[in-house]
Amino acid sequence: MVKHPPQTIAEAIIEYLIKNEVNTFFIVTGENISPMVDYIEKRKEIKYYCFQHEQSAAMAAESYYRSSQGKVGAVLSMGGPGAQNLLNGICGCYYESVPCVFITGQVDTYESLDSVQTTPRQVGPQESPISKSFKYFTKYSTKLTTPRMVSEQLHLAFSAMLSNRKGPILLEVPLNIQGSNKSKFMFKHPVISNSSKLEISEELNFLRKHLKKSKRPLFLLGNGIKLSHSEDMALEMVNSIKIPFVTSWGGFDIISHDHPLFIGDIGVYGSRSGNFAIQNCDLLISIGSRLDTQQTGKDLSKFSRESYKVVVDIDPNELYKNRGLDIDMVIEGDAKLFMRQLTSVITPLDQISEWLNYVNKLKSSKESRPLNEKVLSPYEFLEELNLKLPDNSTVIPDEGNHLFWSMQSLKPNNTQKVYSNFGNASTGYALPASIGASIVNSNPIICISGDGSFQANIQELQTIKNYNLPIKIFIINNKGYGSIRQFQDSYFNSRYTATDGDDYSSPDFVKIAEAYGIKALRATKKNYKKVINLAMQEKGCILVDVIIDKNQNVTPKLEPGYALEDMSPYLTAKQIHSNMIIDMIHRDVNHYQGWKKIEE
Amino acid sequence: MVKHPPQTIAEAIIEYLIKNEVNTFFIVTGENISPMVDYIEKRKEIKYYCFQHEQSAAMAAESYYRSSQGKVGAVLSMGGPGAQNLLNGICGCYYESVPCVFITGQVDTYESLDSVQTTPRQVGPQESPISKSFKYFTKYSTKLTTPRMVSEQLHLAFSAMLSNRKGPILLEVPLNIQGSNKSKFMFKHPVISNSSKLEISEELNFLRKHLKKSKRPLFLLGNGIKLSHSEDMALEMVNSIKIPFVTSWGGFDIISHDHPLFIGDIGVYGSRSGNFAIQNCDLLISIGSRLDTQQTGKDLSKFSRESYKVVVDIDPNELYKNRGLDIDMVIEGDAKLFMRQLTSVITPLDQISEWLNYVNKLKSSKESRPLNEKVLSPYEFLEELNLKLPDNSTVIPDEGNHLFWSMQSLKPNNTQKVYSNFGNASTGYALPASIGASIVNSNPIICISGDGSFQANIQELQTIKNYNLPIKIFIINNKGYGSIRQFQDSYFNSRYTATDGDDYSSPDFVKIAEAYGIKALRATKKNYKKVINLAMQEKGCILVDVIIDKNQNVTPKLEPGYALEDMSPYLTAKQIHSNMIIDMIHRDVNHYQGWKKIEE
Repeated sequence: MVKHPPQTIAEAIIEYLIKNEVNTFFIVTGENISPMVDYIEKRKEIKYYCFQHEQSAAMAAESYYRSSQGKVGAVLSMGGPGAQNLLNGICGCYYESVPCVFITGQVDTYESLDSVQTTPRQVGPQESPISKSFKYFTKYSTKLTTPRMVSEQLHLAFSAMLSNRKGPILLEVPLNIQGSNKSKFMFKHPVISNSSKLEISEELNFLRKHLKKSKRPLFLLGNGIKLSHSEDMALEMVNSIKIPFVTSWGGFDIISHDHPLFIGDIGVYGSRSGNFAIQNCDLLISIGSRLDTQQTGKDLSKFSRESYKVVVDIDPNELYKNRGLDIDMVIEGDAKLFMRQLTSVITPLDQISEWLNYVNKLKSSKESRPLNEKVLSPYEFLEELNLKLPDNSTVIPDEGNHLFWSMQSLKPNNTQKVYSNFGNASTGYALPASIGASIVNSNPIICISGDGSFQANIQELQTIKNYNLPIKIFIINNKGYGSIRQFQDSYFNSRYTATDGDDYSSPDFVKIAEAYGIKALRATKKNYKKVINLAMQEKGCILVDVIIDKNQNVTPKLEPGYALEDMSPYLTAKQIHSNMIIDMIHRDVNHYQGWKKIEE
Repeated sequence: MVKHPPQTIAEAIIEYLIKNEVNTFFIVTGENISPMVDYIEKRKEIKYYCFQHEQSAAMAAESYYRSSQGKVGAVLSMGGPGAQNLLNGICGCYYESVPCVFITGQVDTYESLDSVQTTPRQVGPQESPISKSFKYFTKYSTKLTTPRMVSEQLHLAFSAMLSNRKGPILLEVPLNIQGSNKSKFMFKHPVISNSSKLEISEELNFLRKHLKKSKRPLFLLGNGIKLSHSEDMALEMVNSIKIPFVTSWGGFDIISHDHPLFIGDIGVYGSRSGNFAIQNCDLLISIGSRLDTQQTGKDLSKFSRESYKVVVDIDPNELYKNRGLDIDMVIEGDAKLFMRQLTSVITPLDQISEWLNYVNKLKSSKESRPLNEKVLSPYEFLEELNLKLPDNSTVIPDEGNHLFWSMQSLKPNNTQKVYSNFGNASTGYALPASIGASIVNSNPIICISGDGSFQANIQELQTIKNYNLPIKIFIINNKGYGSIRQFQDSYFNSRYTATDGDDYSSPDFVKIAEAYGIKALRATKKNYKKVINLAMQEKGCILVDVIIDKNQNVTPKLEPGYALEDMSPYLTAKQIHSNMIIDMIHRDVNHYQGWKKIEE
């Protein structure tokens, strides 16, 4: 029962959101979104948070969904420049399949681009055609131009947001529509459809035959498992069937890294163990992963080249994209359903003990990374941080080398979470995402950023201060854009144009934090263990500027065109051979030439 | 003669830009734009500047064009999130008719959305379909998917950018296209067309007849005059024909404010004198202004209601948009051409002496703004700043009340410039725009921002520090989003949701500046004159946190639906009457209800 009968369309839209359990709002206000914002404070069901920049509000809402195990947030901003600023965060939602309601203001209908007879660039103040332009990044995007259409459009937008592979929606609401009488408004509940198959017994029969023959089966667990909220089911499946598994980054924290059947993560910055495993399996069952380049390497003919490949995905656009990977069996369906049914028909396999020995051996080898005696390596810092991570922590790395170092150093247990916005991978994600996680979660939130990335949304220190959020921020400071420098080392003779030297500098982050009223420390080789302890004991927000070895690259890393087993720093042919079950390929022949390749 | 014959498409594109006099680059780098960035440092003709966020790079390039009297800049960023971050700045260029070349990286063609057979959300890492989505905000927007198409597309894009009403262009260049051999590349020079009429003698004859009869003629000078680089011609016209003039904000600094025929600026936050003049003229000649709501007020029937209206514009979409304003004569043409021809056929009018007396009387009245004895009013601060402004200064306000206060307080002389991004009007514009102005201009650059707006691009203090740019930054600090608070005062019973109180705080800006290594001062009622002097004497960058009266609103202001002569704080009917030549309208009848209006 609605206690506050809405009077206006603005109020009716908010009530519609509340009825659909969307009651956490991320706001940067402005004149033409004011009627909605004004109503929000009147409704006790709603919690809202105000940000300093729209980009951050959007990123926080995306992370809020992920940290809350599926609570959909709403982002309110003005139209025009405010809405433009949302784009990066909207893309983040879309590529991570995160549902989120974006509502932007817009100029009055009678002074809009729709109201005139030609196509000028702008009619009303700060007007831009947001919903038309953003349709490429949303599941539904529309402008509500009459009070009469609002019910229907909300119904369609919510239905799209929640059906099949989820994603963000965008509603532009002109100021005069917000203020219109809601008498034309009717609540029409969303209809959630799921076009994926419910019945996969034929595929399962087929798969069962393959499993019975397979000597080297492997699961690849991806983000789709998290999106279907079936982490527990994945663990049950693995424990029941006892097949080893690797993960994509999207599936990095589904199952504890100390699980005996976990071999490692795969991909360009993955683990050697995970990559060797996926290259040598004879049956690959990929669940909820889109198998993109960052996981397979650029040369698809070299990826897991002797395996029978089974791919389970809810999105037919991913299954049938045909980007060059030979998939032997596609299963269009929900990850949870597949795992439940598979678990019910498959028992542990007898013939894989040799394979289990092999993968266990892979796990036991440790990457060699020589330490510098005087300066801190990001690896030694992050490995120490990993040891000190409390249970139930959530770690959110930003984009850049510190992300890769983090993924290579962190070993979340079954209570810990590690995620980033891997698809859009925007710098500046971690800080607002940590805010989104912190407001729903009283457990420790760890933000890991770099000196370059952190600047992109540095203003959100204000939001943290304003709401007194106990986030622990670590800036892995290598004084430059390290990941691009590493790319310049490989392809541009170490000419660090626009990444270092005269082109780059960074502020004193400790002083910055203090100017925002946030406690801060600096960590170096000498004191980093102590600083980590202090940071972990801190009750409020704390920022740590971690001064690391500028010359530390990411190791291992897969260079473009190489096979996953052949990461740099390169092993000798003998070393690779000792880890391979299938045939090796000659490394120096037909090497991919990176971006220099195309000829017409 | 090209001394460095380009080897790759990346190099050929850069050479094409240099040949077309685009040799200042605004950069945030990333892997998939690296080949272009790497080449840039090799070419001595090029100056480049690295920013902390793509939004700022774009805003700086826009301002660079305006401050350099027409030098086109180029912005380079990675694709995906980097390109998404450009949107606000691209819109800024589009709405201000500023040409600018945006080049973004993109994933390799063979791992892109174009390379697959379905429509997944993303294929390559960080991929997004930028050029498709941004076509709404650019004059030309395309993705270069083969080396063969590059010459032709550059030609088309540059031709579009520079023809008729100018604007930004966007080229997405996949990494492997950048690296491709340039053998297929041919230099094809842009062809600049101008579809506006060169011959307007018929219109001029007609207009001459109207001028001969007119007793109260008035020019409205708009941004189109600056866009056609005809500020001098405008002055010559006014001096020769001796008709009084008002300006839009886009035309604010075309002619010195101490010119005897200048009456004021018009619009919602304009001057009472300018608004009275435009309401009472009998012949309005608008040159290069789109006459948007911010200038006319929302109720078009009340705007300049007894005048014969002549509108000169280069863009037929503006002339024929038919948004409700009765235009009596449209002249589709270039502002410079029109002014030159008008000046050649019209001599000073005999019959307007009474009108000249009237407008002079308007100018002599001063807005009453009671001062608080203890706290600083933004008006007293900005009026003092105006007095101390050196010749040849450029003042760039941001978006918010400080913009309105600035426009009401500053009186640029014929050497001083005042501009902002009035069309898109994004918060956070002023700081990067000041950078764009500073790199082309050794004269004083004054950035005026607010405490809320400044946070949006606060990270660019780093860019200022890095290039040691002597910008003077004034943060007009009213501890909240003042312009929205004022709107909430008018329409939401002063409920300051999301603009003040628990929802808003700001940092210690002096400490922030110091953390970035920038000198800073704080100004209050007690010391503001001294602080302005110190700031004006400072050789390097200086930031001044100006603590003002939180309760000071913008006065005068036009409320939605009122006639331009009837600004708040409201004059009495008698006072208005004494300033009106045409009939008054009854103020309380048929009042527009703002955003509450629509009924179906």
